[in-house]
Amino acid sequence: MPIHDTYRIKEEILIPAYEGRSALIKAGEELVIIDVEGKQVGDFVCFSLQDPDEYVSPVHMRASLSSISLKTGDLLYSNRRRPLMQLVQDTVGKHDFFFPACDYYRYKVDFGLEDHPNCHDNLKEALTYYSLGHLPVPDPINWFMNNILDENGDYVISEPLSKPGDFVRLKALDDVIVACSTCSQDLAPVNGFRVTELKLQILNKARI
Amino acid sequence: MPIHDTYRIKEEILIPAYEGRSALIKAGEELVIIDVEGKQVGDFVCFSLQDPDEYVSPVHMRASLSSISLKTGDLLYSNRRRPLMQLVQDTVGKHDFFFPACDYYRYKVDFGLEDHPNCHDNLKEALTYYSLGHLPVPDPINWFMNNILDENGDYVISEPLSKPGDFVRLKALDDVIVACSTCSQDLAPVNGFRVTELKLQILNKARI
Repeated sequence: MPIHDTYRIKEEILIPAYEGRSALIKAGEELVIIDVEGKQVGDFVCFSLQDPDEYVSPVHMRASLSSISLKTGDLLYSNRRRPLMQLVQDTVGKHDFFFPACDYYRYKVDFGLEDHPNCHDNLKEALTYYSLGHLPVPDPINWFMNNILDENGDYVISEPLSKPGDFVRLKALDDVIVACSTCSQDLAPVNGFRVTELKLQILNKARI
Repeated sequence: MPIHDTYRIKEEILIPAYEGRSALIKAGEELVIIDVEGKQVGDFVCFSLQDPDEYVSPVHMRASLSSISLKTGDLLYSNRRRPLMQLVQDTVGKHDFFFPACDYYRYKVDFGLEDHPNCHDNLKEALTYYSLGHLPVPDPINWFMNNILDENGDYVISEPLSKPGDFVRLKALDDVIVACSTCSQDLAPVNGFRVTELKLQILNKARI
């Protein structure tokens, strides 16, 4: 009889609305990012555990993938053009990786708000858990974000297509530290004007 | 009789093939980037003189412009969502601001070359002239780069549409340090398989 590998849940992390969380994923393990209630964007960054100066870099991904659109099977390339993770399953099919994390300046400049929660700061705080809070926050992959591009290259941000329980599943190709923020934009359609929780599941192989 | 402002050439800087150059542009002055022989991409970065932690940031530009396509009149926004320059004239109409600078890893990973000249290093070296060489090189605007996107979000890099003498003209809205590299990619259609020079002209107002 052959030995089959199957995955079991090693750890679950709930990311409350307006917050971020980080996790260590070992090579070969998988990360599931679940949109619990639907229509919730997750801003996501990923660092090499061994050398955090290497991180998943959307601008380099766009080059290595020759695309601005993410598809199942795509590799998440680093700023050194090396894949750190792979998108192995996706129940939604529409994500963004050319838009920035919302940040202090977004709410200050565009909405006149001084103290709005934002993904940049959520991610930075989440990364302090693994002593990476001093590093610049890389550009994120915005899971479930729904930018609709027209033929002129202009786009509108529409509500996510994700329904309750939809998810993406990522396989770690090396040991990585990831962080994810429930996108805190409640003043635009990005999250359907309502910020809700996301859930991370870390899966590892159990031999049966 | 009204007093008319007209612009005169204050300084000209030739950027040889496979190199980068930097320049200080004062608020109100203009920068012309001329594609001398045609089909030559210029990788371009721009820092605030007063605080170089603020720089033109394509990812934030894509958000503030709601576009992945540059048009005359567009503002070049910083990582603090503040415009540092403005695109005031453009004889080509096709540029890129979602692709990375070519770098050591591009030639190493994709072509197996250890020592190919690259825009990242050209820009870093050019920025040492203004003591900014220690900073991370921001994502560039790639003037004259011709990425052709299909309806799936995939793209091919085609030869630039720029002819000899074509140019873009940028107005400085604050005092800035800019750097530009003649894109050193000679193994792909990016520059028509041939790297050639670019010319910078700095214009200031002469009252007549």
